[in-house]
Amino acid sequence: MDNERIARAALSRLMEPQDAAGLALVQAAGAVDALRIATGQLAPGPALEREITELLAGIGGSTGWGGMAAALKRWAPRIPDLAPERDLATMARLGGRLIVPSDGLWPAQLADLGIHEPICLWWRGLEQQLPGASSCVALVGSRDSTSYGASVTGDLGYSLAQRGFTVVSGGAYGIDAHAHRAALAGGSGAVPTIAVMAGGVDRFYPSGNEDLLRAVCNQGAVIAEVPPGSAPTRYRFLQRNRLIAALSAVTVVVEARWRSGALNTAHHAETLGRAVGAVPGSVHSANSAGCHRLLREGGAVCVTDAAEIAELAAPSGEALTEPRTGPGAVHDGLTLEDLILLDALPLRSTSSVDKLCAVAGLGAESVRAGLGRLGLLGLAAAERGGWKRARESS
Amino acid sequence: MDNERIARAALSRLMEPQDAAGLALVQAAGAVDALRIATGQLAPGPALEREITELLAGIGGSTGWGGMAAALKRWAPRIPDLAPERDLATMARLGGRLIVPSDGLWPAQLADLGIHEPICLWWRGLEQQLPGASSCVALVGSRDSTSYGASVTGDLGYSLAQRGFTVVSGGAYGIDAHAHRAALAGGSGAVPTIAVMAGGVDRFYPSGNEDLLRAVCNQGAVIAEVPPGSAPTRYRFLQRNRLIAALSAVTVVVEARWRSGALNTAHHAETLGRAVGAVPGSVHSANSAGCHRLLREGGAVCVTDAAEIAELAAPSGEALTEPRTGPGAVHDGLTLEDLILLDALPLRSTSSVDKLCAVAGLGAESVRAGLGRLGLLGLAAAERGGWKRARESS
Repeated sequence: MDNERIARAALSRLMEPQDAAGLALVQAAGAVDALRIATGQLAPGPALEREITELLAGIGGSTGWGGMAAALKRWAPRIPDLAPERDLATMARLGGRLIVPSDGLWPAQLADLGIHEPICLWWRGLEQQLPGASSCVALVGSRDSTSYGASVTGDLGYSLAQRGFTVVSGGAYGIDAHAHRAALAGGSGAVPTIAVMAGGVDRFYPSGNEDLLRAVCNQGAVIAEVPPGSAPTRYRFLQRNRLIAALSAVTVVVEARWRSGALNTAHHAETLGRAVGAVPGSVHSANSAGCHRLLREGGAVCVTDAAEIAELAAPSGEALTEPRTGPGAVHDGLTLEDLILLDALPLRSTSSVDKLCAVAGLGAESVRAGLGRLGLLGLAAAERGGWKRARESS
Repeated sequence: MDNERIARAALSRLMEPQDAAGLALVQAAGAVDALRIATGQLAPGPALEREITELLAGIGGSTGWGGMAAALKRWAPRIPDLAPERDLATMARLGGRLIVPSDGLWPAQLADLGIHEPICLWWRGLEQQLPGASSCVALVGSRDSTSYGASVTGDLGYSLAQRGFTVVSGGAYGIDAHAHRAALAGGSGAVPTIAVMAGGVDRFYPSGNEDLLRAVCNQGAVIAEVPPGSAPTRYRFLQRNRLIAALSAVTVVVEARWRSGALNTAHHAETLGRAVGAVPGSVHSANSAGCHRLLREGGAVCVTDAAEIAELAAPSGEALTEPRTGPGAVHDGLTLEDLILLDALPLRSTSSVDKLCAVAGLGAESVRAGLGRLGLLGLAAAERGGWKRARESS
């Protein structure tokens, strides 16, 4: 077992997700030396300090994390608890593994997070290649979903999985659970669905979703950036959302209140330049207010079915939806004059050319030529020396 | 009664709405001479012919109307029916009038239609100034509205009228009727609602809306560009839609199928550079498919209440909606570290500073300072030498 892997396993317990100073340290010193510095075995030299300061300045100073000195104090209380070999053994016992960015199995699209790329991923499920961004769609939304949200999520998750997409969500109650369940039902490909957890993957949380998450494990993947035993705190939920967004080409918010964690996921997707879709709903439903907010304020696209989502996921033009055609109207493609003439034709009685000229406001030549065209289209019929409409054509 | 008025009254019977050759003739020769040319009393000189040809070329040649020669033939059959004085007398008897672009009562915003500005308007209702575009909102949609569409239109129409807006619609069944009715109920200002008809205003069409349209007449206005006695043909419905769009600062489509006349009104509004709003609805409702189509394809803005529509109607920034605030979460505004610390505080038992350092992954100084801040906010409480959460704050 290589040092890099063990170091990252330990660092993921030492630092909260998106600990800016910690991520800068890992980037500047590498994971192995970063762990030695973080645990006080090695002192950071002035050159390294400078590099870290520059990295931190580059990502915006006011991250609330302070510099290296504060970071070392922050990490110190957790040093006694470090036991990366034990954590890795736990994962192996659960049929899982740890992956790090240098692994072949690492989802390449996470690199788009830049310095905020996770240190490692703890992964339960089959050992298989996770799909690239263009095959992943995040379906997210409220825990307290309505029957409308449940039904739409069910349709979307099933249809997306049937089209070979991997449905990414957060394993929570409500929209998340409906998304995973529908993807498992519809999945034909290798990884129908991925659950990205805010807490450790040793526990299937929330407990009401235990069976569902076990099924996700068996067919897809359950992953987290925090090590086994970590509680799913509010902070970790918010950071977890960036992973859902980064894994997926499109993040679709199915139902969300005006304030909702799902909007946070959508904002992560926007920041990454990924597409955001929002499902419209009743203006009377508080659970759609967040979706409508995204349509108004954000760059979200209104999506109503899986085909429209697939279109967003595809490199431009590759998966254009079939142009939807309503019931074709008989008057499509008529010239203005012929349309006016058609309107002037009586339904039951017949009308002379002279009368049609006056009613339609058209010259006799236009009327005669138009009657010929409408006759060919089966819209006008000659009868007893006059003309009438051949069939109802409203 | 001046010649200009009589000429325009006659021309509006001679020509269908948006008869390009006719409009060009009126623009080039003036209404009085245009009528004399159209009725064969005066021959157009070569200079006039050239001017008309240029005007027609300027608005795009393929209008399907042909040139002047074709136009003269088109108009000829209707000449015997011309009786503008009788039409004007009819309007006077109905308590109405004819207005022409040079009148003070002419809605100035119709000039944005350019050459497609109507020749005149036949108007039933009180003689009063019609509001400018910035006070007019068009509410349009399907005839076969759902209960959802009815309810949303009722809310919007009433609230817009209460805010002093004039609700413009087409007098049809469904969304149109709900819009007029709600505006009449909510109207406090001078003109709560305007019905723009596709046929003559002598008849209240459809007959099921007769009482409603009479009420619109009594409090607002019922107008049309076609003279009394004109049937509401399909062609005239499509042309009428441009007037609804041109009168209003915003055109809102409340409910529309994938193919719907309401979308035609929205496209007129877009062409005029006016704002278009679309009300979202269930993805399962065929009656919202047209609205969602506008949100996806057109430049329509998602609107869910009257305030959002008022914002679209206002010159930028004047009527910004109040920032909507959801139920404020106690953790709003906390720093990342304090948020993590709050998550680490036990709900029932208490925890020591050392324990909190390990659980939260924070240095002792940060924990002590954070506990002080959380204590001041009433989120943390000291008890028996330890700390706990002061109240539930999920």
